[in-house]
Amino acid sequence: MKVDGKNLRTIWLSPDEKAVKIIDQRCLPHELVIIDLKTVDEAIAAIRDMAVRGAPLIGATGAYGVYLAALNAPSQTIEDTYWISECERLKSARPTAVNLTWAVDEVLTAVMKEKQPDKCVSIARNRAAAIIEQEVGRCKKIGEHGLPLIDEISRRKQGQTVNVLTHCNAGWLACIEHGTATAPIYAAFDQGIDLHVWVDETRPLNQGNRLTAWELGKHGVKHTIITDNAGGYLMQQGNVDIVIVGTDRTTGTGDVANKIGTYLKALAAKDNEIPFYVALPSSTFDWNLKDGVKDIPIEERNPDEIRYIEGRADGKNQRVLICPADSAAANYAFDVTPSKLVTGFITERGICKATPEGIKRLFPERF
Amino acid sequence: MKVDGKNLRTIWLSPDEKAVKIIDQRCLPHELVIIDLKTVDEAIAAIRDMAVRGAPLIGATGAYGVYLAALNAPSQTIEDTYWISECERLKSARPTAVNLTWAVDEVLTAVMKEKQPDKCVSIARNRAAAIIEQEVGRCKKIGEHGLPLIDEISRRKQGQTVNVLTHCNAGWLACIEHGTATAPIYAAFDQGIDLHVWVDETRPLNQGNRLTAWELGKHGVKHTIITDNAGGYLMQQGNVDIVIVGTDRTTGTGDVANKIGTYLKALAAKDNEIPFYVALPSSTFDWNLKDGVKDIPIEERNPDEIRYIEGRADGKNQRVLICPADSAAANYAFDVTPSKLVTGFITERGICKATPEGIKRLFPERF
Repeated sequence: MKVDGKNLRTIWLSPDEKAVKIIDQRCLPHELVIIDLKTVDEAIAAIRDMAVRGAPLIGATGAYGVYLAALNAPSQTIEDTYWISECERLKSARPTAVNLTWAVDEVLTAVMKEKQPDKCVSIARNRAAAIIEQEVGRCKKIGEHGLPLIDEISRRKQGQTVNVLTHCNAGWLACIEHGTATAPIYAAFDQGIDLHVWVDETRPLNQGNRLTAWELGKHGVKHTIITDNAGGYLMQQGNVDIVIVGTDRTTGTGDVANKIGTYLKALAAKDNEIPFYVALPSSTFDWNLKDGVKDIPIEERNPDEIRYIEGRADGKNQRVLICPADSAAANYAFDVTPSKLVTGFITERGICKATPEGIKRLFPERF
Repeated sequence: MKVDGKNLRTIWLSPDEKAVKIIDQRCLPHELVIIDLKTVDEAIAAIRDMAVRGAPLIGATGAYGVYLAALNAPSQTIEDTYWISECERLKSARPTAVNLTWAVDEVLTAVMKEKQPDKCVSIARNRAAAIIEQEVGRCKKIGEHGLPLIDEISRRKQGQTVNVLTHCNAGWLACIEHGTATAPIYAAFDQGIDLHVWVDETRPLNQGNRLTAWELGKHGVKHTIITDNAGGYLMQQGNVDIVIVGTDRTTGTGDVANKIGTYLKALAAKDNEIPFYVALPSSTFDWNLKDGVKDIPIEERNPDEIRYIEGRADGKNQRVLICPADSAAANYAFDVTPSKLVTGFITERGICKATPEGIKRLFPERF
């Protein structure tokens, strides 16, 4: 995507191929800091300490982590134990990230298959790059399939601004390019459709006002930050034409786990007859689950993420306490939006209804 | 209410009656600062700069402001022009606060009726005190009428903890004692009912995690701060037994304007069949309005209230920027919850349905 007119991805190789370059997302939105990862340890730290976040980007960093293991291999003899232990270390940087395990194992398998010491660097590099291009391709397809939804609203409104509401950051910062929920937005923007995005700030970690606002702004997309409380009011007033969000895990029956607060926006969209779409690569489906509200475990995170907030003052980041020092807080990271509230899924294969029948039509091999 | 075991109100006269004492709410929750108002100018500044907030408390401060005008009257001759100009200045401290105008005019009328220079101080003091006791009495009644709702849930749960969810601060800090939405909570707590309050942080001004959490904690009520995003999830999981909120303005047909985000909680309560009550003194009804969503104008406030946040670091308050410096924000202060989502109103006269018929039953003289 564009940042101040220049193309940028969230992860790429340095020209000399000695380092993996990433945007340190902890510094956003106040500073664009690009850091070099030259060792497996540095890749692990980037994943663990959340310099990179978002399932596809975590996977990409893990894949390039195996490339860094190849670059730094102690000898030209391939020692299985070295590879296996480096990959285990990478995978345990964020143990619950399914994409990380998958991507690391993909690259490891490719290297192990060849077992040629002189080729392991190039094999790892090529397999990692292929995984990344596959992710980019999926997001691009999501954009292409979602574009007509926005285009149709624009035509119906005779070219007047289309107002999209999104929650959290399912943007290119969570992926490599395009994003998921943002892919149709960027596709529409790049086609010249007049659109504007309401950005939920997304408490407590504020991925909306920190990351989504930043990436939309850098690409040139009109946007306005709102509190998570405001979306319902905007919908009542007719100021939202479509809601598009991402998802962390989706049941084969159409229930959607996504960042906490998504369910409230879906309820408001339903009450005001506004289309509510979820954009996702099909890898996000958990085909075995039937009842999202009952079956998807919800991560409870550190309450201090609610009690404290970080922002910018005097040219540096500061962390401030925003509640009584002795009050407890509870920090649920996700909620589940039941399929009855979801208008449809935007996937790399097209759009479908959030029903077993709708999903089956696009992904018959899974049923 | 209790603060660390001692009784405290939000406003009271000093023992020598030379000053009006208030809690400077801008310093909460990090410090309990009590300040003296000795002049009309100081009362105006307290109202204008939001050292006091909440309709009943603003009214009380205005009423005592007229008392301060009496204390500081330049001569023992009552000059109409002096009183009228001082009262106009008081009323313009927050021009949209209906309670302020009402309370100031009440005390002014009492003083003007007597026109006795030697009695104006005592008349103003007594009328202001009477207004305050009337407000306290209304809140107490709301508590008494709301208590059975919580008591019934407690009995149904066989004494297990009753979980109440509230939004914003409709607490004693907004009033003088008891609060409105909190009145049934304090009444139940004081009766020994085991209860726990989920406190929405209430972005952007965080009246929930700053004020409601503070006052509940000081009185000893178990509570947990959550993000505004989390209430829907908690309701889905069966962890909310009743929602009680306040209101800024309510139509005679039962639509409720309250702090932005209230509507989203009402939708979630409906979806999960959880009772959603609004506590209000009947002075909050705007009897002429029929359609709240269409007819109640919503205040749009300074976007910097969303872009910046104040908190505590290194022993002092700090204001930090939490979004890209060049991103726009929109700050809608209230939303309207349609009557169809409201289970009932808790008023000083009892509980009624959120319908014209229900309201008429309690307030027949208004119809």
